[in-house]
Amino acid sequence: MLERFKVPEKDRVYVAEGQIRTATEAIFRHSGVSVDEAARSTDVLITNDLRGVESHGVSNMLRHYVADYGTNKLNPTPEFKVVRESKTTMTIDADRALGTHVGPWAMQHAIDKAKEFGMGAVAVTNSGHLAGCGYYAMMAAQQGMIGHCMTAGGSHQTVPTFGSKPVMGTNPIAWAAPARNMPPFLFDVATTQVANNKISLARRNGAQIEGGWITDLDGEPILENIDPPDIGEYYLLHIGGTRENGSHKGFGLALMNEIICNELSGYGPGPVNGTPGGHFFQAYDIEAFTDREKFLDDMDSLLKFIADVPPAKGFERVIYAGLKEDEDEKERLKGGIPYHREVIEWFESYCAEAGIECDLR
Amino acid sequence: MLERFKVPEKDRVYVAEGQIRTATEAIFRHSGVSVDEAARSTDVLITNDLRGVESHGVSNMLRHYVADYGTNKLNPTPEFKVVRESKTTMTIDADRALGTHVGPWAMQHAIDKAKEFGMGAVAVTNSGHLAGCGYYAMMAAQQGMIGHCMTAGGSHQTVPTFGSKPVMGTNPIAWAAPARNMPPFLFDVATTQVANNKISLARRNGAQIEGGWITDLDGEPILENIDPPDIGEYYLLHIGGTRENGSHKGFGLALMNEIICNELSGYGPGPVNGTPGGHFFQAYDIEAFTDREKFLDDMDSLLKFIADVPPAKGFERVIYAGLKEDEDEKERLKGGIPYHREVIEWFESYCAEAGIECDLR
Repeated sequence: MLERFKVPEKDRVYVAEGQIRTATEAIFRHSGVSVDEAARSTDVLITNDLRGVESHGVSNMLRHYVADYGTNKLNPTPEFKVVRESKTTMTIDADRALGTHVGPWAMQHAIDKAKEFGMGAVAVTNSGHLAGCGYYAMMAAQQGMIGHCMTAGGSHQTVPTFGSKPVMGTNPIAWAAPARNMPPFLFDVATTQVANNKISLARRNGAQIEGGWITDLDGEPILENIDPPDIGEYYLLHIGGTRENGSHKGFGLALMNEIICNELSGYGPGPVNGTPGGHFFQAYDIEAFTDREKFLDDMDSLLKFIADVPPAKGFERVIYAGLKEDEDEKERLKGGIPYHREVIEWFESYCAEAGIECDLR
Repeated sequence: MLERFKVPEKDRVYVAEGQIRTATEAIFRHSGVSVDEAARSTDVLITNDLRGVESHGVSNMLRHYVADYGTNKLNPTPEFKVVRESKTTMTIDADRALGTHVGPWAMQHAIDKAKEFGMGAVAVTNSGHLAGCGYYAMMAAQQGMIGHCMTAGGSHQTVPTFGSKPVMGTNPIAWAAPARNMPPFLFDVATTQVANNKISLARRNGAQIEGGWITDLDGEPILENIDPPDIGEYYLLHIGGTRENGSHKGFGLALMNEIICNELSGYGPGPVNGTPGGHFFQAYDIEAFTDREKFLDDMDSLLKFIADVPPAKGFERVIYAGLKEDEDEKERLKGGIPYHREVIEWFESYCAEAGIECDLR
């Protein structure tokens, strides 16, 4: 993650992983989520925070989840309904479950199907925010498979190439693959130049937005660096940024995501219906294609080769997707997770009001 | 495709689809390929030309294929060996088949497996150039499925983010999905800013290369517009272009491609071994997830919504991946395919030398 998205040193409160986990679980339980499911949702968020993906941890969205449980927009005790199932596939109506609630369940079903048949996929509709895709793809890698996850992240946020109005969401995608000794590959990105939550992070951190990341409300790319505008005052650009720089590639990738998450799942087109979007989870069993031991050795050889590429002038080293996140995780497990004091203050005030014990300092 | 890659009007020779097909089939047969397989490989190339993807038609690579058949680098009568197979997956040693030779066979096997089990995938090693991925993904869409294809396009061509030396190839990816009345979605791109073959096209057309597309031999991005350098005088940049503009997203996408095409297939890491790279073909049966008729209606509604988005100032309309290519195909089926006269001269001189009948004017 770019430096500007990180919490400025003066605002950092370091919290031990166990403490933030306990508080987050208690907050989910207070919203009516069961003990086991509260632990599962919390694991998604805290794993993101540990891996340096704080745009998708407890900082930005937990307060919205709590609010949505409060208004019954989210269902704390959903019953998943299997809409359609084949040997390798399943489509689920998640009964208004938060994405972090249904996601681990769905990915595990994809993995189980892949174990039996070589590949497995689960499409999920009628569900809330997934908190990124990386956690779920990684579940497959941790079980010796290649994992893939997408979510059609909302709609009417991102301006298509040549367009003047927003159509899709940030439509994130992730793939993960295990290695033997090298940190696993985990590629986990929005198909926009920048995730929406990172605009919030930059705002909280007093940092600027790079030219070519967002557009004005006429869909015109803003090419100079500016302070992050408020929500509703900008649209996002697809990967590539401007038309000249190939935003049609990011746009196409986002549309692939929309088609698989919303049309293949039977949820229907998010941009047309204004719906928040479905999720998609897929696992490939390595043994169905090749020898897993050879795969792990080849991955080590590939990833080491890349990490050893001489850096360009002015840079320290080449990093592949997943390398820095693995290092962050080790460091934060030891030294705590750096949260913005504003986030900790939210925890403390929410917990005080709800009568939840909360020990974060 | 950008205007600069198109054949300049003064150099255009329009050839009827049937005529270029006949000549190309004869050239494949002359290299020892069977009648049926010559027709199949030709269909891949001419379909690309019809759809305006002339970077991957007969213009650039056919002469190299012929040379590689001549030196026995390519095998005109390969016997595909099934290395591993599961209910939904298959890994093939293609016995030095050209990609266009094994590709249609492999994709059809992925489709057949998807028909039976919901999803199917075939990984291919020991094979030559695939001529893009779009044709194969589209085979699935034409059979009412979602298609996905990738090929790890060589190695040591593309500089990773923060790096100074090239690691991967252009690693193209494609997804296709059918619609009812709207032209199908077909997203088919290199994970570089620009495909290598487009540099050749620009050179032939006397056009310039955009800043942020390529690097010098130290891996430094070239930021101004320049004449296309010769092969060996530049490296490519991943989607995103410069580090500041998010080339890590293109880099991660290319690495996902490398891992699935080369490690999952058991071929081994292309960047380490300097191998040309494996192919990967996947099909998702829509009926395994949702009702196909609803899917087709939803696709029409989505694609029409996008095509109807008001364009930004200075642009005519919004196009989704596959729309323009569908229009090109209709136009070229009627009015012929515009080839550069240099390409037609190559056909004529090769055919004269080989004693093949060739009627292209």
